[in-house]
Amino acid sequence: MTSIAHLGPLGSYSELAATNYAHWLMANHGAVSNLKPYNTIAKAIQAAATGETDAAVVPIENSIGGSVRDTLDMLWELDTLKIQNNLVIPIHHALLSHATCLRDIQTVYSHPQALTQCQKWLAANLPNAVQIATSSTTEALPRLSNDATSAAISPMWAAKLYNISVLADPINDNPDNATRFWVLGRNQTKQGSHTSLAFRLPDNAPGALLKPLQLFATQGINMSRIESRPTKLALGDYRFFIDIEASLDDPNTQAALQLLRNCTKTLKIFGSYKQIQVQVL
Amino acid sequence: MTSIAHLGPLGSYSELAATNYAHWLMANHGAVSNLKPYNTIAKAIQAAATGETDAAVVPIENSIGGSVRDTLDMLWELDTLKIQNNLVIPIHHALLSHATCLRDIQTVYSHPQALTQCQKWLAANLPNAVQIATSSTTEALPRLSNDATSAAISPMWAAKLYNISVLADPINDNPDNATRFWVLGRNQTKQGSHTSLAFRLPDNAPGALLKPLQLFATQGINMSRIESRPTKLALGDYRFFIDIEASLDDPNTQAALQLLRNCTKTLKIFGSYKQIQVQVL
Repeated sequence: MTSIAHLGPLGSYSELAATNYAHWLMANHGAVSNLKPYNTIAKAIQAAATGETDAAVVPIENSIGGSVRDTLDMLWELDTLKIQNNLVIPIHHALLSHATCLRDIQTVYSHPQALTQCQKWLAANLPNAVQIATSSTTEALPRLSNDATSAAISPMWAAKLYNISVLADPINDNPDNATRFWVLGRNQTKQGSHTSLAFRLPDNAPGALLKPLQLFATQGINMSRIESRPTKLALGDYRFFIDIEASLDDPNTQAALQLLRNCTKTLKIFGSYKQIQVQVL
Repeated sequence: MTSIAHLGPLGSYSELAATNYAHWLMANHGAVSNLKPYNTIAKAIQAAATGETDAAVVPIENSIGGSVRDTLDMLWELDTLKIQNNLVIPIHHALLSHATCLRDIQTVYSHPQALTQCQKWLAANLPNAVQIATSSTTEALPRLSNDATSAAISPMWAAKLYNISVLADPINDNPDNATRFWVLGRNQTKQGSHTSLAFRLPDNAPGALLKPLQLFATQGINMSRIESRPTKLALGDYRFFIDIEASLDDPNTQAALQLLRNCTKTLKIFGSYKQIQVQVL
């Protein structure tokens, strides 16, 4: 039995990602999983780090919101987890409600990011509805049963979990909205098409970033993502998180990493991982 | 009379920054200002863009939380505002309450970022208090008057504005916590020590970032910050925001920007600005 930590509550996109990963484990390794929800990303990651669970499935990047900072910061701080797999989940927001038609809706609940991602649809279809922020996309769902004038913007698949009707779907303004998740565990998987790492620079100036980037370019390694995060020590002092399109096993990667140690202050390698193709539920 | 838009409510760090800017305007230009609070960063920036106010003072980066995404995204989208000045405000969280001693406190309210920034202090001093998230650091203050068992983590200077006692100060775990603000306006100021710009890359791959960084290095221009933001079109497609330590008037900067146009897709220059020294209130 493989235990998988994820950000709750029931019906969240993180649970959807974890469920897809569990299905993949069953199909490819015959492994049965059980999912364990946590109320913050940090706690889900910590569960995998301490051995309370075998893995954590956590969001790393959304196509609209950008990087998930808690995930990056926790990975740096813990220094014990490896990225084992990468999966992309399309974000399809639906309007869930016990109302029978749109014009009855006076209030719309959702997480601030989901509200932002549906602003054009809301302006066109519910211009007078009051928008109220909640701490997750599914938090308001249990409350809707006694109120046929309210709706929640939630993942489509939460409708059957909470037994609520779908009034409209999809309602996100950008149809290509997607979130990338990482599967984190204590063991390094053998191979992968991508590698993630992070470092600080010796003189704290992003200008010194040129050298590390040149190293990868010289080895013919493409960089698919770069993200800066503060070290939390002082303004202007950063860590850099980089994804490269190469495996750790690759001699070119090994050569680049060898040289990278000389021009970075702290270098952390989060492992090589492959892309899992999921059949989104 | 110069009107200055900022993120409210009364007593917020943004209001503190705007007040400091108003004092600087008075001391250096003899200009009288009036402050106008808005309930989101986007609305404050829009006020300056449409001419509803003369300027907006908005946060751009915190030493713990990192970049303020709303500010970066709005600057890119509007394309009409210039950065006129830069100011740094130290963040000194205080515990405000009508209680007379710490051991009476059962509940602590604040913005999630402020709660996170005081976790060690809370664990040591109020390990059993329930922490409740609010939408700003001052939102809970009006409610405290009827409740001597609750406290709020707020800016120190909010204590006198709301007439509430300071139970402890400073309580942030990191004493060097600071936020950088930009003054945005429709006119470009004449000179500055720093320049900010943003661009997309022609082939959507951060690997193509090497060329722009080389251009600055060749001209002897140091880069003090780099931040990636999604274009919101698809996963893996980014804009890059860069701060350089050089003025737009500088021939070296002009030479670099000329070449930069050839290796970027959309190049936006947000102007040159200087650092304002503020006497924090």
